[in-house]
Amino acid sequence: MLGHTGDDMESLLSIDDLKEDLEKILQWAIVMKSDNEVALDFFPLDGMSIGSIYEKPSTRTRVSFEVGIDKLGGNSLTLLKGDIQLGKSESVADTANVLSRYLGGITYRCFSHDDVVELSANSSVPVINALSDKHHPCQAAADLMTIMEKKGTDKLKIAWVGDGNNVLHDLVLASAILGFDINWAIPKGYEPDEDVINRAKEIAAKTGSKLMETNDPIEAVKNADVVYTDVFVSMGEEHLKDKMSDFDGFQINDDLVSNAKEDYIFMHCLPAHRGEEVTDSVIDSKNSVVFDQAENRMWSQMSILTYLINRPAWDTYYEMLEINFN
Amino acid sequence: MLGHTGDDMESLLSIDDLKEDLEKILQWAIVMKSDNEVALDFFPLDGMSIGSIYEKPSTRTRVSFEVGIDKLGGNSLTLLKGDIQLGKSESVADTANVLSRYLGGITYRCFSHDDVVELSANSSVPVINALSDKHHPCQAAADLMTIMEKKGTDKLKIAWVGDGNNVLHDLVLASAILGFDINWAIPKGYEPDEDVINRAKEIAAKTGSKLMETNDPIEAVKNADVVYTDVFVSMGEEHLKDKMSDFDGFQINDDLVSNAKEDYIFMHCLPAHRGEEVTDSVIDSKNSVVFDQAENRMWSQMSILTYLINRPAWDTYYEMLEINFN
Amino acid sequence: MLGHTGDDMESLLSIDDLKEDLEKILQWAIVMKSDNEVALDFFPLDGMSIGSIYEKPSTRTRVSFEVGIDKLGGNSLTLLKGDIQLGKSESVADTANVLSRYLGGITYRCFSHDDVVELSANSSVPVINALSDKHHPCQAAADLMTIMEKKGTDKLKIAWVGDGNNVLHDLVLASAILGFDINWAIPKGYEPDEDVINRAKEIAAKTGSKLMETNDPIEAVKNADVVYTDVFVSMGEEHLKDKMSDFDGFQINDDLVSNAKEDYIFMHCLPAHRGEEVTDSVIDSKNSVVFDQAENRMWSQMSILTYLINRPAWDTYYEMLEINFN
Repeated sequence: MLGHTGDDMESLLSIDDLKEDLEKILQWAIVMKSDNEVALDFFPLDGMSIGSIYEKPSTRTRVSFEVGIDKLGGNSLTLLKGDIQLGKSESVADTANVLSRYLGGITYRCFSHDDVVELSANSSVPVINALSDKHHPCQAAADLMTIMEKKGTDKLKIAWVGDGNNVLHDLVLASAILGFDINWAIPKGYEPDEDVINRAKEIAAKTGSKLMETNDPIEAVKNADVVYTDVFVSMGEEHLKDKMSDFDGFQINDDLVSNAKEDYIFMHCLPAHRGEEVTDSVIDSKNSVVFDQAENRMWSQMSILTYLINRPAWDTYYEMLEINFN
Repeated sequence: MLGHTGDDMESLLSIDDLKEDLEKILQWAIVMKSDNEVALDFFPLDGMSIGSIYEKPSTRTRVSFEVGIDKLGGNSLTLLKGDIQLGKSESVADTANVLSRYLGGITYRCFSHDDVVELSANSSVPVINALSDKHHPCQAAADLMTIMEKKGTDKLKIAWVGDGNNVLHDLVLASAILGFDINWAIPKGYEPDEDVINRAKEIAAKTGSKLMETNDPIEAVKNADVVYTDVFVSMGEEHLKDKMSDFDGFQINDDLVSNAKEDYIFMHCLPAHRGEEVTDSVIDSKNSVVFDQAENRMWSQMSILTYLINRPAWDTYYEMLEINFN
Repeated sequence: MLGHTGDDMESLLSIDDLKEDLEKILQWAIVMKSDNEVALDFFPLDGMSIGSIYEKPSTRTRVSFEVGIDKLGGNSLTLLKGDIQLGKSESVADTANVLSRYLGGITYRCFSHDDVVELSANSSVPVINALSDKHHPCQAAADLMTIMEKKGTDKLKIAWVGDGNNVLHDLVLASAILGFDINWAIPKGYEPDEDVINRAKEIAAKTGSKLMETNDPIEAVKNADVVYTDVFVSMGEEHLKDKMSDFDGFQINDDLVSNAKEDYIFMHCLPAHRGEEVTDSVIDSKNSVVFDQAENRMWSQMSILTYLINRPAWDTYYEMLEINFN
């Protein structure tokens, strides 16, 4: 199962759920970010509360959501692990039903992707996957917004070097939707899930995006406009030591990026383990856009929240955008 | 001691503290819920912060209060166990004095009812009991609001089947205040507190409410308009296994509710342990109003907060209600 | 190192960072507190979020900041220990860079003063020290606001009796800035840090403040306008028993305060350990202003937040103050 639910159009479980509207959603995010007057007169979540459930603490996700919801005029309600235990004292269905009576939407950062699917299936308000073990659509939205902001929407090549994880899954899907080429270099055994890649290929067949997999970081980075990596081992992973050596040669350093285009941008979803997957010389270089990318979590999520929770407002504003900015 | 404090009229420790204004408070809650235009122009807590102290996590209570306070224009400040330890690093009186300088009101979900009484006695702002081991006035307010909404205010019969706990205490008091009949079926040894029932009898003597206790679920449910239960054993109770068997025959199932009126409503304060105190067939039936009841926690609390914290606003709005809606 | 950073004018690490503007900042706090119409029309943090990071729970600090930020029209975002671990999963510099993209300012309650210095050095938004092991500028601001409110700004004598701790550090610096005399009575071995006192002496040389240290509580309290103490041992200190006996004779009781001026005010930053550093007879007397002092945490922090985060608004309002109130 891919993770998106065909019968629940209003939730965001994988970036694929936004389909062809993804580009528009990111354009609106870019307008909100760049035009203070737009932002100051745009309160599509006025009078609404958005609940955010975290099974694991997540500074970047939490702060970007809480601040973004406030900027949209909404009220943010954060439930950390221990504050709520989905499926423990009552069924997920009952909790979802009750929360849907109070809230305008729910963001959920869970471990197992099945859990956010189940929550969404039982909620009558939109559910946003704020990170599961399979998908990370909010990260992909911020990533593509950053690429559009820095590089435009013309054909370009994205290189991913590292683990075939949840961040890559949605990056591949989003690249396919927007028609970008992407080449991921992955050590043997760390490949992305086949069902995700198959779905991305279906999309790419329509948009003309080229999807390429390799085990060779140099091949991936060659002539790339974007070089992207993530930590090799996430916190809490037991097989840490062993895993690290599998990533020998996958570090993003000056040598490797010399293969990319001269004006390439370096991306990382953060937190970075400096000296492991990336050197200071790269992440602190003028090519690095990692803090813009982090900031864009907020703006792209604001556009997504509006799109999912207050579509009439989103439509009105997007129409205004087409008149004034195109 | 009953729990309410005669000399502190502004706090809500048991539902009895609202006395004869209870019906008006619930009428106003029903208006806010049904009339969006009223709600959108009603910010009686504007510029005020309400602190909510939880000794134990409580999803429903917390979300309904945080969202309701926001809808009233107020700022919600949630202090979970560990964030504040009443009576540990300083006296309850000193903490209450300090919090009263910052906050417009305090909600407190504690274990021992004595603690909320002590906090209220030392606070110069209203304190709302958000659940103690003796009283649960906010639940009773939501329960009676739901009954009024679904069944009106004419004489009707409420049946409680289960433990003689804090939820029942305030349900009996509230039923007595509003003049409803109530019959509770309780296994031997689980009877409600005598002082609460004696107080309810005093009230019932004036309002004409009939209060009946039995050990026979069928007798209680016979011709009932409302059938209400709660979990038999709460989380954390040690004597779980033993206690469960004492409740043999007290499950709300199709057989039992066949004794009620045909258009009876099923109520439960949630979370429900499906298959224990109630079957799926009942809680998922068309007679079940459990999610309306959960939603009404928010609306009734909003009316209570306004009544206790901004009485002039409440009076003005209630007067408007009488002119426009009666 | 004193703790303030000369090159980061916008942060508040010690009260010395506010320099000669301290008095104006406190005057504005007094106006906001006393004039509701000013406060109701003053939203300098509108559209902004302020993040508050706590390494240790702190009821008074947290509630006063959350409520004050709301009163200024801002959105408060509280990160408790466990929600964020500075310097653990990523470098402090990276976290500071990311948070600066979302937030208008950061308050930080840490253990080691070095940590708030490091956070400030890496943030592009103002950082407010909400208590470190070396400085407590927000407490000193509230203290001096209370003294100004109760006693005016004419020359007066402040007596500190107790530990030479972080609260004393900023109280001495603030007294020196405002030209008040201060005499601290400290048991041998508990003296304040020499670098702080040396800095205070530099300031006092210009303002005419007299700084006096003694081991004799009676000498300190003699003819004092203000008598101030703090707990002798803070929670978590291991050497509790031993330390307590070092403070024999340092309790603020009726005997000791009989040496002060008749209209002296008693101050304590709370929480108080009644019966240890102060008797009930003193803290509950008409001379005690401890709850006003606690309330003033909020108002002085509101003025500081405005001053640091929205200087144009602060300047405009202060100018208005000079026209209308002087």
